[in-house]
Amino acid sequence: MKVELEKVLPGEIEARSFEIITKELGDTPLVPGTEPIVKRCIHTSADFDYAKNLCFSEGAVEKALAAIKDGASIVTDTQMAKAGINKKALERFGGSVYCFMSDPDVAAQAKEEGCTRAKASMDKAAKLDCPLIFAIGNAPTALVRLYELIEEGRIDPRLVIGVPVGFVNVVASKELIMETQTPYIVARGRKGGSNIAACICNALLYMLKESGRE
Amino acid sequence: MKVELEKVLPGEIEARSFEIITKELGDTPLVPGTEPIVKRCIHTSADFDYAKNLCFSEGAVEKALAAIKDGASIVTDTQMAKAGINKKALERFGGSVYCFMSDPDVAAQAKEEGCTRAKASMDKAAKLDCPLIFAIGNAPTALVRLYELIEEGRIDPRLVIGVPVGFVNVVASKELIMETQTPYIVARGRKGGSNIAACICNALLYMLKESGRE
Repeated sequence: MKVELEKVLPGEIEARSFEIITKELGDTPLVPGTEPIVKRCIHTSADFDYAKNLCFSEGAVEKALAAIKDGASIVTDTQMAKAGINKKALERFGGSVYCFMSDPDVAAQAKEEGCTRAKASMDKAAKLDCPLIFAIGNAPTALVRLYELIEEGRIDPRLVIGVPVGFVNVVASKELIMETQTPYIVARGRKGGSNIAACICNALLYMLKESGRE
Repeated sequence: MKVELEKVLPGEIEARSFEIITKELGDTPLVPGTEPIVKRCIHTSADFDYAKNLCFSEGAVEKALAAIKDGASIVTDTQMAKAGINKKALERFGGSVYCFMSDPDVAAQAKEEGCTRAKASMDKAAKLDCPLIFAIGNAPTALVRLYELIEEGRIDPRLVIGVPVGFVNVVASKELIMETQTPYIVARGRKGGSNIAACICNALLYMLKESGRE
């Protein structure tokens, strides 16, 4: 087979990718205002399912952007998602990225309670005293715990990005979050991941960057 | 809607997930010996396409396991993949995980040459003096550079995990790597990602852990 490479300058690869995504989406209906997020998820996964499975609560994107501008911090359930989020872009607005999964006190609580570290890490995050966005890309148990903490009135997140991936309670945990009054961006069904969680955070950050340029 | 959660103990979630994956794969043909890798990619993505798109060069898994036992280090093209690889498990065999994407000298070379940092980071990796596994989950330009370095006889990787994701030269870069004599694990087509790159590394590490238990 003859392999041919397309000549694209390094600075143009992303724009060219988004052109291809936009073209292939054709007239697939997307909720107005959510397009940059949906397209970035497809960019990150090459999986057009995200054009259909992403669910946004009413005004979720506007509320998320406002939260970031207010200096919201982001809590993730994996070091991978933390590594993938553009921390410099977030820091410009005053926020930080937290992941408590590797913390000794979280491990200790998980062992004591017989729960997942993901659940214990949400309990730790609930003690943070700042506006919070949760970006859950791995553990449905984290999302279930967020649901409980929200329903008990112990936390009031500015946004929950609910995109755990997998086969055990993943679908159900997302449906639970969508029952709350908390703004959410959820990938309905089994799909998601740390990469998707990070990419939704970055899509939001880049929307602010671009609107700042205008 | 009534949401029902399945009761599964934290330590049993992964095993239950693999049960579901195995059941849903049914009699989908997989190359013998590659099943733990294919299933872990599906576990990481909830995307059964990986049962079809993963390509293994002859004996790739055995060669990869031997490389890890020999103390091979892993070079990735993203901090996310680095964050996702089980570094403790790798260190037991003597290897480390490297990602040079954020290094100032890599940024400087990329600027000077007008190339991607991914390409420059592969040039830096080529100077490492140890057995190497490359785990490329993001940048096709990294994979193309590896192809060139291999063809020029400047590197001789023990394995190339070629799973960049996306729309510009991703498909072609994978086909290029499959033309070399280097052992490879490639996700043919557009799909892949840092999460998939990390998960293939981990699947290999867990295969060694499990065989060590016997």
